[in-house]
Amino acid sequence: MSLFQKHQTALTKAIVALQNRQFYCHHPEHHNAYPKEKAKEGYEAFEGKLNKPFEELLQTGGTEWIGNEESPFWQKSLGITYPQTSIEVLIDNAQTAFKSWRKVSIEERAGILMESIDHISQRYFEIAYSTQHTAGQSFGMSFQASGPHATDRAVEAIAMAYQELTRFPRQTEWVKPIGRTTVSLQKSFLPIPKGIGLAIGCSTFPVWNSVSGIYANLMAGNVAILKPHPTGILPIAIYIAELQKVLQENDFSPNTVQLAVDSPSNLITKELAEHPAVKLIDFTGSSEFGNYIESLQSQGKEVFTEKAGVNSVIIDSAPNLRQVMRNLAFSLSLYSGQMCTAPQNIFIPETGVKEGEELIPYERVVDLLQNEVAAHVLNPRMKVTLGTIQNPMTLQRARMAKNLGGKVVLRPPKVKYEQFPEARIQSPTIIEVNADQISVFEKELFGPIILVIKTKNTQESIDLAQSLASKQGAISCAAYTTDKNIAAQITEAMNAAFTPVSLNLTGFIFVNQAAAFSDFHVSGGNPAGNASFADPNFVNRRFVWIGNRVME
Amino acid sequence: MSLFQKHQTALTKAIVALQNRQFYCHHPEHHNAYPKEKAKEGYEAFEGKLNKPFEELLQTGGTEWIGNEESPFWQKSLGITYPQTSIEVLIDNAQTAFKSWRKVSIEERAGILMESIDHISQRYFEIAYSTQHTAGQSFGMSFQASGPHATDRAVEAIAMAYQELTRFPRQTEWVKPIGRTTVSLQKSFLPIPKGIGLAIGCSTFPVWNSVSGIYANLMAGNVAILKPHPTGILPIAIYIAELQKVLQENDFSPNTVQLAVDSPSNLITKELAEHPAVKLIDFTGSSEFGNYIESLQSQGKEVFTEKAGVNSVIIDSAPNLRQVMRNLAFSLSLYSGQMCTAPQNIFIPETGVKEGEELIPYERVVDLLQNEVAAHVLNPRMKVTLGTIQNPMTLQRARMAKNLGGKVVLRPPKVKYEQFPEARIQSPTIIEVNADQISVFEKELFGPIILVIKTKNTQESIDLAQSLASKQGAISCAAYTTDKNIAAQITEAMNAAFTPVSLNLTGFIFVNQAAAFSDFHVSGGNPAGNASFADPNFVNRRFVWIGNRVME
Repeated sequence: MSLFQKHQTALTKAIVALQNRQFYCHHPEHHNAYPKEKAKEGYEAFEGKLNKPFEELLQTGGTEWIGNEESPFWQKSLGITYPQTSIEVLIDNAQTAFKSWRKVSIEERAGILMESIDHISQRYFEIAYSTQHTAGQSFGMSFQASGPHATDRAVEAIAMAYQELTRFPRQTEWVKPIGRTTVSLQKSFLPIPKGIGLAIGCSTFPVWNSVSGIYANLMAGNVAILKPHPTGILPIAIYIAELQKVLQENDFSPNTVQLAVDSPSNLITKELAEHPAVKLIDFTGSSEFGNYIESLQSQGKEVFTEKAGVNSVIIDSAPNLRQVMRNLAFSLSLYSGQMCTAPQNIFIPETGVKEGEELIPYERVVDLLQNEVAAHVLNPRMKVTLGTIQNPMTLQRARMAKNLGGKVVLRPPKVKYEQFPEARIQSPTIIEVNADQISVFEKELFGPIILVIKTKNTQESIDLAQSLASKQGAISCAAYTTDKNIAAQITEAMNAAFTPVSLNLTGFIFVNQAAAFSDFHVSGGNPAGNASFADPNFVNRRFVWIGNRVME
Repeated sequence: MSLFQKHQTALTKAIVALQNRQFYCHHPEHHNAYPKEKAKEGYEAFEGKLNKPFEELLQTGGTEWIGNEESPFWQKSLGITYPQTSIEVLIDNAQTAFKSWRKVSIEERAGILMESIDHISQRYFEIAYSTQHTAGQSFGMSFQASGPHATDRAVEAIAMAYQELTRFPRQTEWVKPIGRTTVSLQKSFLPIPKGIGLAIGCSTFPVWNSVSGIYANLMAGNVAILKPHPTGILPIAIYIAELQKVLQENDFSPNTVQLAVDSPSNLITKELAEHPAVKLIDFTGSSEFGNYIESLQSQGKEVFTEKAGVNSVIIDSAPNLRQVMRNLAFSLSLYSGQMCTAPQNIFIPETGVKEGEELIPYERVVDLLQNEVAAHVLNPRMKVTLGTIQNPMTLQRARMAKNLGGKVVLRPPKVKYEQFPEARIQSPTIIEVNADQISVFEKELFGPIILVIKTKNTQESIDLAQSLASKQGAISCAAYTTDKNIAAQITEAMNAAFTPVSLNLTGFIFVNQAAAFSDFHVSGGNPAGNASFADPNFVNRRFVWIGNRVME
C-alpha cells in the first residue's frame, strides 16, 4: 500500500470538511486529551535536548553549531545548538532537491506529507514543552497550538492544495468544429511549481504560523527553507527533522525542507529573502518587516504575509453582561495578549449598554470588565492561561502602559507561578481613553494592554473599529448586540474592512480561536496581512498552470 | 424569468467546458460565419460614427470631448470624440456605484453580465470595423478577436468567477465536540469585493485583452474603469456602452463601469493607477510600463499584467517540412507579428532537420521557410492576414531590421491592398543570426521581424529558448519533432520556464491561437506577465473570503 493509499481516507475527509467549512480534526484523540504518562515521556525527551546540539536534522552542509534560545518560564538559556548552514549551501541544496521533488506526483507528495504528520503527532508532548520554553505559552496552549491545531492547519494546506492541483484534467482531447470538419489537439494541463519557498518564523507561534506555508509549498512541488526566529527554533526543528526523516525513508532528499538558523547578532533573513532563487516567501511578524517583504513582490516573488493589526470589540447590548465579560476576560488574558487574534480595543458607548431590558451605565460596564479580568488572572486554575511574556521589550511596554495617556482602570494584578518563580509574567493593564484619543489606540500595543474606548454611541464604535481595521489592519472583531439590525450593520462595516466578525460569543468559544478547515485565518484584505490560511489563493499562488497542446 | 435564469444553461455549459478544458463557444453561430447583409449594416453603423461625438455612454460627469484615433488602413483621423471625465469624477462615480454593486447577488451580477454579452453580440460587425480601423487588424481577425473570441473570454471570466464565488456554503452550522457536549456556531462565508478595478487597454487588442479583467471584476462585485489606449477607443467604447445600457435597464448605476479616455498629450494612466481608491489593475502593454504597474503591489494593489515576451519555435524533425513551414508562415504573417503569441525566434540546428528518414540540410530548411512566408504574403487571398502596422514606430523598427546584425534571408516582399492604397503595411523580414548573437534575438522585436537562429543542435535550441523564456518572458512556444524523447525534453524545459508548448501544429491550428475555456493565455510565471486568462488566481485575487461566526 502506498503512503497515498494509506492516508487517502483522511485526506478525503479533510477535503470534504474544508469544502463545507465544517468542524474537523485530523487527530481527534489529541484534542483535549493529555494522558499523564505521555506527558512525562515528552518532558523527558524535551529535557534531554537541553544544553546539547540538536542532531536530528538530516540536511547537509552545516558547519558551526549555534543557538540562543531561552525559556521565558525559567529566564535562562536552553543551551541547545543547531547546525548553521551558509546561504549558498542552503540554496544549492534546495535547488538540487527541487530538481527531483518537482517531478514527484501529487499523490506521492500528499502521501509523504500526511505520513510526516503522523510521525510528528507522536511527539506532541515534546513539541509542547519546547513551545512552552521558547514562545512562553502556557503548557496547554503550547500543546494545542504547536500540536494538533498546527497539524490541522498543515492538513488543511495539503487538502486545499490537493484539491487545486488536481482541479483540471491531466490529459484531454480538444475537438474544434471547423466548417463541416473538426480539428483536434491532445492537451495536457500541468501545475508547475515555482521553486524555493522561504518561510520566516515568528517568536510567539514558532510552529502554528509556519506550517501552512511549508506544507502548501511542498504539496505544490516547491522546496522549503524555514528561517525560524532565533528565539523559537526547537519546536519547529522537531517538525523539520520528522519531515526530513520521512523524506529520506522514501528515497527523497532530506534537503527538500531545510532549517536555516541564524543568531540575533547575524540575521540572514534579508539576504535569504532577496536571493534570486527564492521565489516564494511566507512571513509572520512585524508590519515594518512585513512591508519590506511585500516590497519584494516587484522582484517577481510571491509573498504571503501576516503582520500586525488592531483588533476591536464592540459592545452594544447583551442578555447577560457578566457572561460577555467572562468570555472577554479569557480572550484578553490568553497568552497575555500576544496572539494576533487577541482583542485590544473595547468600544463601549458612554450612554451605557442594554442588558435585556435594563440599561447598564457605562461605568458599571467598565467595572464589570475589569472585575472579570482581575478575577480570571487571580483564579489559581485560570491564571496559567496568561503564559509568560516572550520578549522583554513587550514586558517593558506593558509596564509603561499606565503612561499611555488614559485612565488606568485595572492595574496589573500580581500573579506568580509556584512552579516557575522566575517566569517573565505580567497580567493585563486596562486603560480607558476617549474616542478622540485616537493616537493612543490606533496602533497595535502587543502584549497585555487593553484599551476601553468610551464612544458616543454604537455607531461611533462601529465607525472607529472599521476605520482602524482599514487603516491599521485587523484579524478579528468580537461584537455583542441583541439587535439584529445593529448586528448586520457591524458585520457589513467590518467585512467591508475585510475583518470577520464573531458575534455574541460566550462560554467556551473565544474570538482568538480560528478553527482549521472552517475559519480563514487573516483575511488578506487589510494591512494585517496579504494572505489567508488557507483560502484558494494560499495554494494557487504557489504554482502555475501550463497547458500543452499536441497535434497527433 | 430573471436574467440569471435566462442565461443559466449557457453559464452551466461554460463552467463545464472550463472545468474540463474542452472546446466551447458562447455564440457558435458567429464563429466562421459572416452574413453579407449583417456586414453591410455593421459597416454603415461604423461609418455613421466617424467625425462625430460618441454619445452612447451613459456615465455621468464628462466635460470636454476628445479623441485622437486614426485608421492604419486609411492613415487618417477617425474624427470621433469621447467625453473626457476628470479622475476625481471617475473615482467619485465609481465609489458611489460600488456602494450598491457590491451588494448585488452573485446570480444577479452573472445575469446582467451574460445579458450584456448578448447585446454586444448584436454589434459584432460594427465592432469588427471599429477594431480594423483602430488596431489595424485585418477584418477577419478584427471580427474574431474583438467579437466572439473576446466575448468567449468574457464568458470564461464570468464562469470562473461564478464557480469560485459560490465555492463555499453561504451559511453553515459548525458543531464542535467538547468533551461530552458540543458547541455550535452559525457561520457565513462571504466573498467581499476589493473596490475599484482599473483596466489599462492596449492599442493592438483594444477589446480582447481588456474584457477578461473587466468582467472578472464586475462578477466579483468590484466596479470597473477602462482606460483605453488613446489610439484604440471605439471598439471597447461600444462594449462599455452596451454594459452601461444593460446596467441602467436593470436599475443599476451605469457608472458601475466607466470609460476613462485621455489623449497622448495628457495621459492619465499613472495618476489613475496610483489613486489610493484603485485597488485592482489589469494591464496589457510594454514591459517597462508593466514593471511600473507591478511595483504598485507594494501599495497593496492587486495587479494583473501582460507584458512583452520572446516566443520561440524549435524545429528538430517533422514528417513533412513544407507543411510545417506553411503553418509557421501563417503564424508569422498574422497581424504582422503584432500578437503577443506570435513566434519571433526560430531555432534550427546547423546539422539539418530530419524529414521522415531524410536529413534536410540547414540551408534548405531556411529556404523552405522564407519561401513559404513569401508565398503566403504574396498570395492574393492570404496577404490580408497581415493587416496593417498599428504604430508608425513599429514600421520604423521593421524597416531597420536589416541592420540588426544578421544576414537578410527574406527582404519584405512588397504588398499592396487594392481597397486601401494608403494602408500602413509591411510584410515580414527574415534575418538569420548565429546562436552566439544573443544580443540580437534576446529582446522582443515587436512587428514583422523574424529571426532564424542557427544552433549547434536541438539541445542548444532548447537551452536558448528556455533561457530566453525565463529571463525575457515568453507566452508561446511552437516545437516540431518526431522524437518522443525530444518532445518530452522540450516540454519539460519550456514548462519549467512557465511557457506552454504547442507540438507539431500543421493545418488550420496555429501557435498564436489561444482558445477560451481551454487554453490559459499567458502563464503568469515568467516575465511576460504575472496573470493568466483565466486561471483560478485570475478571479480569486479580486475578492476576499470572510467568514463570520454567530453564537445563537
